Amino acid sequence: MEKLVPVSLSNRHIHVTKEHLEILFGEGHELTKTKDLSQPGQFACDEKVDIVGPKSTLKGVRILGPVRPETQLEISLYDARTMGVDGIVRPSGNIKGTPGCTIIGTKGQVEIKEGVIVASRHVHLHTSDSEKFGLKDKDIVKVKVGKERGVIFENVMVRVHPTYALDMHIDIEEGNAAGIGNGTMGEIIR
Amino acid sequence: MEKLVPVSLSNRHIHVTKEHLEILFGEGHELTKTKDLSQPGQFACDEKVDIVGPKSTLKGVRILGPVRPETQLEISLYDARTMGVDGIVRPSGNIKGTPGCTIIGTKGQVEIKEGVIVASRHVHLHTSDSEKFGLKDKDIVKVKVGKERGVIFENVMVRVHPTYALDMHIDIEEGNAAGIGNGTMGEIIR
Repeated sequence: MEKLVPVSLSNRHIHVTKEHLEILFGEGHELTKTKDLSQPGQFACDEKVDIVGPKSTLKGVRILGPVRPETQLEISLYDARTMGVDGIVRPSGNIKGTPGCTIIGTKGQVEIKEGVIVASRHVHLHTSDSEKFGLKDKDIVKVKVGKERGVIFENVMVRVHPTYALDMHIDIEEGNAAGIGNGTMGEIIR
Repeated sequence: MEKLVPVSLSNRHIHVTKEHLEILFGEGHELTKTKDLSQPGQFACDEKVDIVGPKSTLKGVRILGPVRPETQLEISLYDARTMGVDGIVRPSGNIKGTPGCTIIGTKGQVEIKEGVIVASRHVHLHTSDSEKFGLKDKDIVKVKVGKERGVIFENVMVRVHPTYALDMHIDIEEGNAAGIGNGTMGEIIR
């Protein structure tokens, strides 16, 4: 059986804590949903911030909601070079020892000491997909995507949860390297 | 036998005709070599130009020498989106029907009707490598690169010539997608 998965390309974005959100946009501020994302409960927001690095500023970086326990900026390796920080590839949430940055909102600014990562690619599986595909949480797979510019991504981590929707997450550079857009189907191979 | 090849990452750059060079930098202008590139006779130049697209301008794009029979701008898919042109993946020299742009030098400007490409990845083999690896001109191979962010590039064209040096050419996005820098070794697989 072919194990097919839709692929989503993430552009640079940021997750913020409730505390940081209120510093950036004012006390009591709530995120304004622009649109839902592929994972249930996750959404893109109207709110954007500027990110100041040692070398340059990334303007208009979108916040993704809901608020999280830790503030985390997800950028590409290209962005990291542009900003002047080390581009460290990490799974989301694993920010210890990563670079920091300054975040500027409409009402205030926050300096974080760590939290700038290049998100490592991964596949979300709903528990039912996990059974169907014979894969379990934290399995490492290969995923084949694209045609003319086709690539096989190695070391792709599988994440399984009853709240997840079937979806592979890669960044813009990984998507461009494969010449694909959002919603292209990839094939999980082992 | 492992078929190993060093990988070079190309940032955006432009090749120009002698005629265009003289419009951009003045009559009789000759290119100033900054450094030699991996392929014999090819070199990076001090001269840079600005590239005007429908949506934005790419500043300071380096000219690679020597002058060529056709002017050709090589950018990433990300650059293409930034400029506001279609990103068309093509082998170098195959520019028919590709987008144009305006090129601005210190002394003048040139509008090209076509010539903006996203260069398709390829491997240069010297004739002796070709024999050693059992590969011939225009063979299509896969190349495995990278570790933590490892990828296998499919549809990589082999080019063989007695003037070539062993080298794989990919663009910055392909390099970043694999988490590699210049000079990393890739393995040709079939």
